[in-house]
Amino acid sequence: MRRAVEALDLPVWDCVSGLSRGPGHRNVMAHIDSEVKEECLREDLKFYFMNPCEKYRARHQIPWKLGLQILKILMVTTQLVRFGLSNQLVVAFKEDSTVAFKHLFLKGYSGIDEDDYSCSVYTQEDTYESIFFAINQYHHLKNITLGTVAYGENEDNRNGLKVCKQHYKKGTMLPSNETLNIDSDVETECIHLSLQVLSKNPQDWKNSSFFCLEFYRLLQIEISFQLKGIDLQTIRSRELPDCYVFQNRITYDNKAHSGKIKIYFDSDANIEECKVLNISGSIQKNTQYVLVFDAFVIVICLASLILCTRSIILALRLRKRFLNFFLEKYKRHVCDADQWKFINGWYVLVIISDLMTIIGSILKMEIKAKNLTNYDLCSILLGTSTLFVWVGVIRYLGYFQTYNVLILTMQASLPKVLRFCACAGMIYLGYTFCGWIVLGPYHDKDIERTSGY
Amino acid sequence: MRRAVEALDLPVWDCVSGLSRGPGHRNVMAHIDSEVKEECLREDLKFYFMNPCEKYRARHQIPWKLGLQILKILMVTTQLVRFGLSNQLVVAFKEDSTVAFKHLFLKGYSGIDEDDYSCSVYTQEDTYESIFFAINQYHHLKNITLGTVAYGENEDNRNGLKVCKQHYKKGTMLPSNETLNIDSDVETECIHLSLQVLSKNPQDWKNSSFFCLEFYRLLQIEISFQLKGIDLQTIRSRELPDCYVFQNRITYDNKAHSGKIKIYFDSDANIEECKVLNISGSIQKNTQYVLVFDAFVIVICLASLILCTRSIILALRLRKRFLNFFLEKYKRHVCDADQWKFINGWYVLVIISDLMTIIGSILKMEIKAKNLTNYDLCSILLGTSTLFVWVGVIRYLGYFQTYNVLILTMQASLPKVLRFCACAGMIYLGYTFCGWIVLGPYHDKDIERTSGY
Amino acid sequence: MRRAVEALDLPVWDCVSGLSRGPGHRNVMAHIDSEVKEECLREDLKFYFMNPCEKYRARHQIPWKLGLQILKILMVTTQLVRFGLSNQLVVAFKEDSTVAFKHLFLKGYSGIDEDDYSCSVYTQEDTYESIFFAINQYHHLKNITLGTVAYGENEDNRNGLKVCKQHYKKGTMLPSNETLNIDSDVETECIHLSLQVLSKNPQDWKNSSFFCLEFYRLLQIEISFQLKGIDLQTIRSRELPDCYVFQNRITYDNKAHSGKIKIYFDSDANIEECKVLNISGSIQKNTQYVLVFDAFVIVICLASLILCTRSIILALRLRKRFLNFFLEKYKRHVCDADQWKFINGWYVLVIISDLMTIIGSILKMEIKAKNLTNYDLCSILLGTSTLFVWVGVIRYLGYFQTYNVLILTMQASLPKVLRFCACAGMIYLGYTFCGWIVLGPYHDKDIERTSGY
Amino acid sequence: MRRAVEALDLPVWDCVSGLSRGPGHRNVMAHIDSEVKEECLREDLKFYFMNPCEKYRARHQIPWKLGLQILKILMVTTQLVRFGLSNQLVVAFKEDSTVAFKHLFLKGYSGIDEDDYSCSVYTQEDTYESIFFAINQYHHLKNITLGTVAYGENEDNRNGLKVCKQHYKKGTMLPSNETLNIDSDVETECIHLSLQVLSKNPQDWKNSSFFCLEFYRLLQIEISFQLKGIDLQTIRSRELPDCYVFQNRITYDNKAHSGKIKIYFDSDANIEECKVLNISGSIQKNTQYVLVFDAFVIVICLASLILCTRSIILALRLRKRFLNFFLEKYKRHVCDADQWKFINGWYVLVIISDLMTIIGSILKMEIKAKNLTNYDLCSILLGTSTLFVWVGVIRYLGYFQTYNVLILTMQASLPKVLRFCACAGMIYLGYTFCGWIVLGPYHDKDIERTSGY
Repeated sequence: MRRAVEALDLPVWDCVSGLSRGPGHRNVMAHIDSEVKEECLREDLKFYFMNPCEKYRARHQIPWKLGLQILKILMVTTQLVRFGLSNQLVVAFKEDSTVAFKHLFLKGYSGIDEDDYSCSVYTQEDTYESIFFAINQYHHLKNITLGTVAYGENEDNRNGLKVCKQHYKKGTMLPSNETLNIDSDVETECIHLSLQVLSKNPQDWKNSSFFCLEFYRLLQIEISFQLKGIDLQTIRSRELPDCYVFQNRITYDNKAHSGKIKIYFDSDANIEECKVLNISGSIQKNTQYVLVFDAFVIVICLASLILCTRSIILALRLRKRFLNFFLEKYKRHVCDADQWKFINGWYVLVIISDLMTIIGSILKMEIKAKNLTNYDLCSILLGTSTLFVWVGVIRYLGYFQTYNVLILTMQASLPKVLRFCACAGMIYLGYTFCGWIVLGPYHDKDIERTSGY
Repeated sequence: MRRAVEALDLPVWDCVSGLSRGPGHRNVMAHIDSEVKEECLREDLKFYFMNPCEKYRARHQIPWKLGLQILKILMVTTQLVRFGLSNQLVVAFKEDSTVAFKHLFLKGYSGIDEDDYSCSVYTQEDTYESIFFAINQYHHLKNITLGTVAYGENEDNRNGLKVCKQHYKKGTMLPSNETLNIDSDVETECIHLSLQVLSKNPQDWKNSSFFCLEFYRLLQIEISFQLKGIDLQTIRSRELPDCYVFQNRITYDNKAHSGKIKIYFDSDANIEECKVLNISGSIQKNTQYVLVFDAFVIVICLASLILCTRSIILALRLRKRFLNFFLEKYKRHVCDADQWKFINGWYVLVIISDLMTIIGSILKMEIKAKNLTNYDLCSILLGTSTLFVWVGVIRYLGYFQTYNVLILTMQASLPKVLRFCACAGMIYLGYTFCGWIVLGPYHDKDIERTSGY
Repeated sequence: MRRAVEALDLPVWDCVSGLSRGPGHRNVMAHIDSEVKEECLREDLKFYFMNPCEKYRARHQIPWKLGLQILKILMVTTQLVRFGLSNQLVVAFKEDSTVAFKHLFLKGYSGIDEDDYSCSVYTQEDTYESIFFAINQYHHLKNITLGTVAYGENEDNRNGLKVCKQHYKKGTMLPSNETLNIDSDVETECIHLSLQVLSKNPQDWKNSSFFCLEFYRLLQIEISFQLKGIDLQTIRSRELPDCYVFQNRITYDNKAHSGKIKIYFDSDANIEECKVLNISGSIQKNTQYVLVFDAFVIVICLASLILCTRSIILALRLRKRFLNFFLEKYKRHVCDADQWKFINGWYVLVIISDLMTIIGSILKMEIKAKNLTNYDLCSILLGTSTLFVWVGVIRYLGYFQTYNVLILTMQASLPKVLRFCACAGMIYLGYTFCGWIVLGPYHDKDIERTSGY
Repeated sequence: MRRAVEALDLPVWDCVSGLSRGPGHRNVMAHIDSEVKEECLREDLKFYFMNPCEKYRARHQIPWKLGLQILKILMVTTQLVRFGLSNQLVVAFKEDSTVAFKHLFLKGYSGIDEDDYSCSVYTQEDTYESIFFAINQYHHLKNITLGTVAYGENEDNRNGLKVCKQHYKKGTMLPSNETLNIDSDVETECIHLSLQVLSKNPQDWKNSSFFCLEFYRLLQIEISFQLKGIDLQTIRSRELPDCYVFQNRITYDNKAHSGKIKIYFDSDANIEECKVLNISGSIQKNTQYVLVFDAFVIVICLASLILCTRSIILALRLRKRFLNFFLEKYKRHVCDADQWKFINGWYVLVIISDLMTIIGSILKMEIKAKNLTNYDLCSILLGTSTLFVWVGVIRYLGYFQTYNVLILTMQASLPKVLRFCACAGMIYLGYTFCGWIVLGPYHDKDIERTSGY
């Protein structure tokens, strides 16, 4: 143990070693009171830089903080896993719904998106068919869909579809004598197809002038409609099903005018309050247990937070005592590096992690109670705090002699590694820019062929 | 050879070297009898820590154990390869049958499973068609299938299909005014379609109220039926063909209510006794040779087992003698590490491996004789024992000086490597949890796009 | 700083150290004038081999070149990124157009090229259908295409398609008695299908003797036609749209006579002047800003070019002074390696990079003004110069002590690495030749099977 | 140069250094004649172990062998590349033909083989259709195929198809009462469908009892036929086209009786003499140039062979002189390792390589003259010899000091690397066996799923 303490002494006394070590420098005329004070400070400093095991052996102090941290790891990880699993259900429902909508509304959808768009058409006939197919499927949705969806209302409280087309304002193209007159201003024209309109003879709306497209000046067509759905599978795992509003938008993108219209399908799924929903039957009331567990996590984190804050405050006081003593005795300031050694970085990490866990847990309880739907922020808070808690475990490994060597080696080699990365990064950046501009766009296909297959 | 023996001396006498080496510490008044005994023990110890080559040179002892181990490697590997090849036939038959069933009973099956499910449907019409297709194919199985399968009987001794549907107990959905009444209790309803029923006009059973599905409260539909098959290809390699019972189950899973019904196909193939099976013609009777071979493996493993057990018993006796002598002479206990050096870990490995081979070979003979069908356990036993036997070869490499250095280096560096892995593991675990919760579910599609294509 | 200078001294004075260092070697009778001159030269040399920081500290010289280089990095990178993005639009349009043409003119095109060809046919019927499909689609192009394309004119100023077939001059194949008479000279026959011809009854031209193919002597059929298109999307990002001439060529390649006709689709897109093009509406006039930016880049590069050239000229003059002094004083020539140290490689790199940037920027301005369309050369010039500029950053890293060590180590180990690569390259070359000839062609399929799936 | 020679001395005089170096051991009474002889031998030995550069400097001997080797590398590589390119044409023709046949004769062939088989069927109806499709396509081949193929004759000189089916001798399967009677002997039944038969009403032969398959006892059906083809593309690159006989065989494999019939397509393409083939027109007569080139390669290799053999013979003579001298003077035998140093391994390599090149080139000329078609053997000979020639280049690198160090280091570390590989290999072998048997067959699908996508 002695060796360990001396090893700790060395870094601390870097710049004052000449003074504190050599007894010949001491003032022989100093009061005994001062010597007692110095001895006391020396003891306190030694104790401060001990690790829990040594503290226990030295003053039989039980390592509460250590125990609390271990308990916290278990609790926080359990909470995270439970939250992650429940999140996955929500996300899977959204994605499955989007896939199902694509199969329902996109004609000839293969099941896999082509690139960032879902599918593409190359002829005028295919474009018309694809548009009319989507509208028709919407009309007969009730008899086709397998999901629990129903028609929703647009922003102007009307049911039905809204079809919008963007095109250049006016223009004529006479291919015979190679003339193109175009007005570069963009115009948007919309049509609203309510369910009443769709129920009539389809030839009526299909033959409207709106659907007579002039492709050479067409920029894009957008079909948007709202659907409402219910995620019933939460009945068994949680108490109340979530209601969703799907804001779907099919976009036929002809902005490139390259002869290929890309079809995008976007589905924004928002969780909304369910209006009329009667669930009968025997639902297990397991909500309170979850809330109790979350509350327990908060209590533990609060305890850990208080203990760590107390440690830091004590450390700052000790630093003040040490600085005063040093100034008094040697008439010199302690160098900055030694001052910073009093602030334990691990405690700061624990405090940040605790704060994040507490806020995250409160958010989680609010989500559970259907007051909030802010899944993303909650995920980031809980996830980051768990990362910090696990990284904090390394600190305890540092207490063992052999691990300590490992960690110190890594600390020492880090700047060299970073320096090398900076050098390599410069060359890489230059190479990337050069490669992108010289090889990139012109040989896309060749590169794909060599690497892609 | 001297150097090698001294090299062996060094590790053994770690903690007693001060005593045994320095002649000045010896009691000059010791009886000659004691000195003779000491010399004898010294000789025995030296001999015990020699390797086979040295033993042969020292006392011309022929290395029976070494020869036996080499023979065992050959035998065990041959046995394993033969068993593996015969297993592969069985497994290939099961898998090919499952693939064939999927092509027969799943409408629009592409030949590749989509994810963990085989295929999926997205519209009400497709769902009905898929169900009726499966039932129809079952009805006409005899005229369609290429395999040697026939109808089996359900658990209640009836032929035909069993179709079950699970749904929430009762419910109404009125999309017009956004109302959903549902009872969260789950109800299961079944129908039995015997071959007699299927032979009638299909419209009769298709129009039954059972097949009028309310998708908003439907949880899943399960079509289950039993088929019997014979694996005829074993006629040539083994003497008797295996009879199989395929318990097939097609599941239409709508639990997510996301508008996508996943279709699962499960086929449990069990080997059963063939009831009426007349094989005539010239089958080669090669079974007895296989049995003789297996018996020979068992005999060799038994011999190896006995020799190694004897070695360990002798070593324990030697240890006792050494401990007594040490206690008598120096009034001290031998430290634990030195005591453990008497137990040769390699012998323990060989004994475990032998026991596993013997049990595995007996199992194999029973399987051959059609008394057992426990392929899995037998595989694990034989496979693990072969792994141990091959790993045991490293021991003999350790007898050569140069390899020994290699092995000792690896032994010494192992704890450091493990320590590093522990550190890295902590960070990795934290990172995984954090990444899963923060990035995981929300950006599935993007990650797939960057990595998957 | 002293140490740094001495470190610089060491490499410079490699071969003259014995003379310049030891004061004992100096001629005591030298004139004071000479001594002053020597001291002055020594000072100049010291200053020349300083880095900017040291120069600033020594003579308070502000590092203009350093500042200019940093500004240049920013400017050149910005220019490159802007140029790259605008290029990508052009390239994407060309590629999308080619894909669209493939979908329009190739029957049964799957969307992915098979190998270097787009698709393939295996029967006579499919070949005829594929040819007639392409011709037919061309005929009805106006009603099919989604792009802004129109018929162009062939090189002989006629509209319509040109179909050419290559075949062996004459030949008969009588499979019954295994006779093949063939004339190995190749004959090319062409037919011109104008729009007027295509408008008639299709059976008229389909039944012409030209389309009666004798496959055993057919080498290839080529359908070529010209289309004109406009890239309208540049209206918003740049001021004027580009007009394109697509020279399309569908090739049915039967040269191998293996029973498989490979269908190639080539589309050469050339940017041409738009003849009659009226763009009205509010186009943002942002061209002048781009031109000003490019001009500013040229000015900066010119400044950098002049400063670096001046530095090199000064260095050469200093070298001359040094050589004269050395020859005068010690009657010896300075060794080559020391002479080369006067020419700073980094300056040469900067000069090359500057010249390339200036030429590239002028090209870019010409392209912008629609006088040139030489995108490729401009890309290579700007890209390579940016690579050099970024690589030049490493030089400044070399001024820091720690980085310098890194760079010197890399310099020292380079020859060893190259030597090892040469050795390995020899073996690899031999192995490649051997593997290609022995394994390559005969086992293509097996290798594909093991690696490709 | 002295140092280099001494460096060479050191390895040579390993075991005799004590004698040859110390002048004190010499016999003072030796005749002057003996001393002259010794000096002469010493000179010869020194010269023998020099490298070409040193030899040139020592005796101004021009390095003929070195020049010859460099010329040989160029010649042999050129020859190999030419041969490889011409081979690739042949192989590509064979493969394209096979792919074309698969598209012609296999119904529903997707273009990619499924596993080791081309496609598979799962129902009785599909099987019949697939068989009849293949026969039908064969019948109408002339009007379908794009290649220059014609019907060939079977081994019994009859045109047309041969359809064979293998099945168990007799058997009945009554699924109703689970009875299977089968005779395990295999019976083969064949039918010959000549073109005359096929020209009749298809229902005639389709309804024959042969095509009434009993799938439960069917093992396999084999359709075999011969086609003749001509590889016309060689007209331009070589002088005469090759004639091919394609022995095609479609196999419907039902040996597993798993309900899945795998369809294999095998096409053995053999080059045969073209019987009646009239090629008129202007074929370039470039054959003689190729033959002259090949002859030149043979001459060079012969020269290299003779020079190297002479070197080895001279070395053996020198060794004899050295041994005699040594025995005479020191009455001792030279140790084995030193004797082996006289035989230069590189010369042996060159001799083997030369012999292979000569045989390979003669084969190549015979192939060119259409006397032989043994492409494979010729490839192996030429390929291996080129590999040896390129590996031989390393020897010359060894003459440079720095490379020599590299090569010596590699030589020294080789045994350690091999030893490590042996150790790792043992563990890997054990692990492989264990993994194969325990995990392998039972979890095929899961492993595929995790790794395959």
